[in-house]
Amino acid sequence: MVFQKEIILPAYKRGFHLITDKIEQELPDISDNGILNIFIKHTSAGLTINENADYSVREDFETIFNKLIPENQPYYTHIFEGSDDMPAHLKSSLTGASLNIPVTNGKLNIGIWQGIYLCEFRNNGGRRKIVLTLYH
Amino acid sequence: MVFQKEIILPAYKRGFHLITDKIEQELPDISDNGILNIFIKHTSAGLTINENADYSVREDFETIFNKLIPENQPYYTHIFEGSDDMPAHLKSSLTGASLNIPVTNGKLNIGIWQGIYLCEFRNNGGRRKIVLTLYH
Amino acid sequence: MVFQKEIILPAYKRGFHLITDKIEQELPDISDNGILNIFIKHTSAGLTINENADYSVREDFETIFNKLIPENQPYYTHIFEGSDDMPAHLKSSLTGASLNIPVTNGKLNIGIWQGIYLCEFRNNGGRRKIVLTLYH
Repeated sequence: MVFQKEIILPAYKRGFHLITDKIEQELPDISDNGILNIFIKHTSAGLTINENADYSVREDFETIFNKLIPENQPYYTHIFEGSDDMPAHLKSSLTGASLNIPVTNGKLNIGIWQGIYLCEFRNNGGRRKIVLTLYH
Repeated sequence: MVFQKEIILPAYKRGFHLITDKIEQELPDISDNGILNIFIKHTSAGLTINENADYSVREDFETIFNKLIPENQPYYTHIFEGSDDMPAHLKSSLTGASLNIPVTNGKLNIGIWQGIYLCEFRNNGGRRKIVLTLYH
Repeated sequence: MVFQKEIILPAYKRGFHLITDKIEQELPDISDNGILNIFIKHTSAGLTINENADYSVREDFETIFNKLIPENQPYYTHIFEGSDDMPAHLKSSLTGASLNIPVTNGKLNIGIWQGIYLCEFRNNGGRRKIVLTLYH
């Protein structure tokens, strides 16, 4: 069986944000096993899974991604949408646009330290659309 | 239900290439929901989703990936297949070998600015094999 | 149909390790097509697919990842778990926590040069939990 739902997240500031609760509350009331696909319909934001406890991890993610893909480099040609735009595109391909997470007995089967991050790579990215698809 | 098909893409030059149309034309004529997995059977090419409109994004992708993983570094030991080979392996793990895209009413449910990129990391990568698997 | 199983890998030293055999031996005895999801329940290790033949590729992966995300940088704030910890978190988001691989006639349908890597980013990561989910 396939469950599918599109949701719209509130606007987040640039950075990495835990959204595990927002995803879990959208899951249907099932008790079997499957896979949840979480897909973000944007090219300047991404999704990843990482440490859910210490906020400093998410702060360091922002720092390190900016070191990896710095803004305002002379070799960028796609610059008309702002200095944060082309780096945001590249970062979104490093994290990826979707996650695929096992569901066991109707619940996300992630590690105790794992959380789902929305990666907002734009300075003003606005609301982001997510498609949830669960087969079970 | 599971639909599966292997296709072979034409040879592309090194760089990032939109292949959304080539994928969509292979989908079966269905009207329900599911997930399409697109898997590339190679270790020096990759797949990603990014901006589908402005060619400069794809040009900047090539530039930035070459800055991230430069060729001809003294610390490479896997060098007998050419200076583009080991960087290509690394880049393919940064993009990943597969995409997982929601299908809604039989169509890819991607954002209006999203396109599927073939990432050709070799100078002469040749034709690339892709496996499409759709469950619905 | 959904098959799901959690396995625990033996502890590996820091680096990139081929685990294709360990995954294949866990697959059920089926003969149809589907997708295998392999999910690692940790935030300082990852999974990727890359070259399965020459050990030097895996050695160069370790070198290049350490160049990309160096340890002991002054801008890290999440440092209380050791100098390898925050870089390990970041690296695990670059590779990703899951792989999705086509299964054809009951076997993994990967390229002849492709293998599944466990990416151990900690100096002493210990045993790692993996969830296998196969729909077919």
